[in-house]
Amino acid sequence: MRIAVLTIGNELLSGKTINTNANWLSKKLSSIGSVITLHITIPDEQASIINNLDLLFSTQIDLIICTGGLGVTDDDITRDVIFSYFGSNEVFDKDYWAFLENKFLKFGYSLPDSNKSQAVSPDNGKVFSNPLGSARGLIYEKNNITLMVLPGVPSEMKAMFDSTISPWVEEKIDSKIFQINIRTTGIPESILFEKVKNIDLEENYHNIGYYPSVYGVDVRIAGEDLEKIEKLKDDIRANIDEYIYEIGDQNLEEVLIKKLKKKKMTISCAESCTGGLIGHRLTQVPGGSEVFNGGMITYSNESKINQLGITLKNIEDFGAVSEQVALEMAENIKNKFGTSIGVSTTGIAGPGGGSKSKPVGLVYVGYCDDKSLKVKRFNFSSSRESNKIRTSQAVLNYVFKMI
Amino acid sequence: MRIAVLTIGNELLSGKTINTNANWLSKKLSSIGSVITLHITIPDEQASIINNLDLLFSTQIDLIICTGGLGVTDDDITRDVIFSYFGSNEVFDKDYWAFLENKFLKFGYSLPDSNKSQAVSPDNGKVFSNPLGSARGLIYEKNNITLMVLPGVPSEMKAMFDSTISPWVEEKIDSKIFQINIRTTGIPESILFEKVKNIDLEENYHNIGYYPSVYGVDVRIAGEDLEKIEKLKDDIRANIDEYIYEIGDQNLEEVLIKKLKKKKMTISCAESCTGGLIGHRLTQVPGGSEVFNGGMITYSNESKINQLGITLKNIEDFGAVSEQVALEMAENIKNKFGTSIGVSTTGIAGPGGGSKSKPVGLVYVGYCDDKSLKVKRFNFSSSRESNKIRTSQAVLNYVFKMI
Repeated sequence: MRIAVLTIGNELLSGKTINTNANWLSKKLSSIGSVITLHITIPDEQASIINNLDLLFSTQIDLIICTGGLGVTDDDITRDVIFSYFGSNEVFDKDYWAFLENKFLKFGYSLPDSNKSQAVSPDNGKVFSNPLGSARGLIYEKNNITLMVLPGVPSEMKAMFDSTISPWVEEKIDSKIFQINIRTTGIPESILFEKVKNIDLEENYHNIGYYPSVYGVDVRIAGEDLEKIEKLKDDIRANIDEYIYEIGDQNLEEVLIKKLKKKKMTISCAESCTGGLIGHRLTQVPGGSEVFNGGMITYSNESKINQLGITLKNIEDFGAVSEQVALEMAENIKNKFGTSIGVSTTGIAGPGGGSKSKPVGLVYVGYCDDKSLKVKRFNFSSSRESNKIRTSQAVLNYVFKMI
Repeated sequence: MRIAVLTIGNELLSGKTINTNANWLSKKLSSIGSVITLHITIPDEQASIINNLDLLFSTQIDLIICTGGLGVTDDDITRDVIFSYFGSNEVFDKDYWAFLENKFLKFGYSLPDSNKSQAVSPDNGKVFSNPLGSARGLIYEKNNITLMVLPGVPSEMKAMFDSTISPWVEEKIDSKIFQINIRTTGIPESILFEKVKNIDLEENYHNIGYYPSVYGVDVRIAGEDLEKIEKLKDDIRANIDEYIYEIGDQNLEEVLIKKLKKKKMTISCAESCTGGLIGHRLTQVPGGSEVFNGGMITYSNESKINQLGITLKNIEDFGAVSEQVALEMAENIKNKFGTSIGVSTTGIAGPGGGSKSKPVGLVYVGYCDDKSLKVKRFNFSSSRESNKIRTSQAVLNYVFKMI
C-alpha cells in the first residue's frame, strides 16, 4: 500500500514545531508493511490545501493521511476546506454535541459555541472517533484513493491512528511483512553493528535496520518469511544477548516492572542527578504501584544527610558524587522503604559543576538487595538531558539484569 | 521572500530519521523574515526528484532549498539527477580535487575515486563551499526561482546555510516579520480563543496562531509592524493575564526556577501520582539545584505514613487521594526539607484505580509556604501520561502564581 502524509500547520512551516507527526506515522506505517511515498507540509490556507489535495488525488497512491487544523480556533480551517472540496453538506450531530457538553461540564466549563464545528458530520463522508479529544476524524474516497483526516495534537492523532487507521491498513495490505524488534541498551551502534554484521545470512542482510536513540539501539529485522527472520533473530541474539532487554516493542520500565511483579519483588530509589526521572518512568507503567513503593530525591547534600542518613564524613572525604555515597544511598533507601531492592544515582549532570577529576557526565549508580551491595561507574556525555536519561536507563537495566 | 524546502531521503519517509533539517531551516529562515510555503520530502528516486522540481519551479516562490543525496555512496543520486535535469555538462575541478586530496592526506587516508563526483561543477550552474565536508552546494536559476542544493548531513547543511544561504536571503528580503509568543496553561484552547477573539484589532486578526499541547496553549502573534504587535500583545495580556506564565519561548520550569532564584526561595515536593515528574522537570533546568532541594516520592500509603509522616487517620477517613492528605503532604515536605515552599500531588493517574466518587483523573495539589497552606482540586482525563504531565504543570503554575 502506497501512502502520502499531508501535514497542515503554520507552526510546522515557521519551524516553531518539529514535524514529529509525519515521522511517527511513517514509522508506524512502515512497520506494518506499507510504503510512504511523500510527505507534504503546507500552511493553514485554503488554496494550499485544495491544490495539494488535487495533486495527491492525481498520484499513484492508495491512501492520504492528513493531520492538523481540526481545532476550534479561526486558524483551524481544514474541516471547512475539506467539506467544501468534496461539496459536503453539514449534518449536525446532536448526540455528539450532548457528549461534548457533558465532557466540558465535568471540567467545570460550559461548552463554547466555537465547538459546534466539531459536532458536524459530512453527508458524503464518514467520521471516526477520537478517544482523547473532541475533534473527530474524517474519511473520504476519490479516484480510488482514501483520504483520512486527523487532528494535529500528537496524543490524539496517535490514539486515532492506533484505533482506526492501523487496523484498516493492515487489513488491506496483501503481502504481509513480518518484523521483529530487538531492543538493546548499553552498547554503541557501531560496536553492535560489528557484532551483528558477520552473521552469515546474506539473503536477510538488507532486512536489518539499526535505530539508535539515547535509550539504546533497536535492531529491527523484517521479511516476508517468518521462519527465516525468527532464525535470524536467534542468531543475532546469540551474539549480543547481554545487551538485549526486550524482543518486541515494550520499553525497559515495562519489562522491568513485569519481571519484578513475577518475582514478587519491590523497589525504591534514591535519586540525585536523575532528580526524579527513575520514579517518573516507573510510574508511567500502569499498575507499577505493586512493585514501586516510592523514593527520595536528594538533590542537595543537606537532604542526602538529613533525609537519607548519608554519612557527612563520606561526603566530606569522597564527595557527593562517589562510589561510597552511591552505595550508602542504595542501602539506606532500601532500608527506609523496606523494599527488596534499593537503587541510587549520583553524578554530574552538567552543563556546570564538572572538574578535572569529576567531569560532567560522571555518574555512579548503586544497587542493593538482600544479597548484594554494588556500584557501577559511567562516563556519559556533556548534555544534561541525555545524561539524566542514560543514567535512568543504566539503573533500570542494572536491576533488570541483576534479578 | 517565499521559500520551499525539499528534503530528499528514504530514511525520512520510512520514519527512521526525523526531519530535523526542514525544521531547522524553517526556524532560521522565519527568524530572518522569510515565509516558508511548503515542505516536501521525497525518496532517493530520479522520477520523484524530477517531478517535484517541475512542480516547485511552477509555483509562486523565490527560492527552493533542497537537501540530501550529495554523498558518494550509490544511493546518493541527487547531484546526477539535478545535472541531467538542467542539462549540465560536468566540469572537473582540478583545484578542488587537489584540495580534497590534501584534506584526506591530513587524516591519513588516500582519496578514494568515489569522491570524484564531488569535485565536479556544472557548466550552467554554480557551486558553493562546504566548511565541514567534501560535498559542495549547487546553485541554479530557472523561471526566476533560485535552487540551492545542500548535503543532508545536519552539521554540514547548517554550516553551509549560515555561511552562504542566510546572508543571500537577508540581502534580498524587503520586509522583516516580528513574532511574539505568549505561553499559557490551565485554560482550554476554545475558552482561551473566546477571550482573545474579541480584541478589536481586525488588521492583525489573522496573525494570531493558537498552538495547544498537553502543557497548555501558546498564542503566537506575528506582523511586520513591531509596535502594532506589541500593542496587540498588551491587549491580549490584559484579557488572559491569569493564564500566562511567559512572553517568549521558555518553559514553565525555567521561568519558575528563575523567579524562585530572584526571590531567594527554595522548594521541595512530595509526589504521589506524579511519581517524580515534578522533580525531574525542575532538575532539567541547569542550576536548578540552587532552589530545588529535593523531595519524596511517596507512592504507597505505607511510604506516605512512614517517610512523610502523614496521619494514618487522615488516610483512613478521607483516603490517600483527598484534600486533607494533599495539605498534610505539602506541609510535611516543607518542614522536613526546610524549604520556603512545599508542594504535593495525590491523585488517580489511571487507567485503573478509579471509582464513582474518585474517578481516574481526580487530582489534589497542595501548596505550603510560610504564610499559607492551600489545596486545589483538578479533574483531568483518562490517560495516565497526560494526567501526570497536567498535574506537574498545575503544580509548577500554582507556585509560579503564588510567589
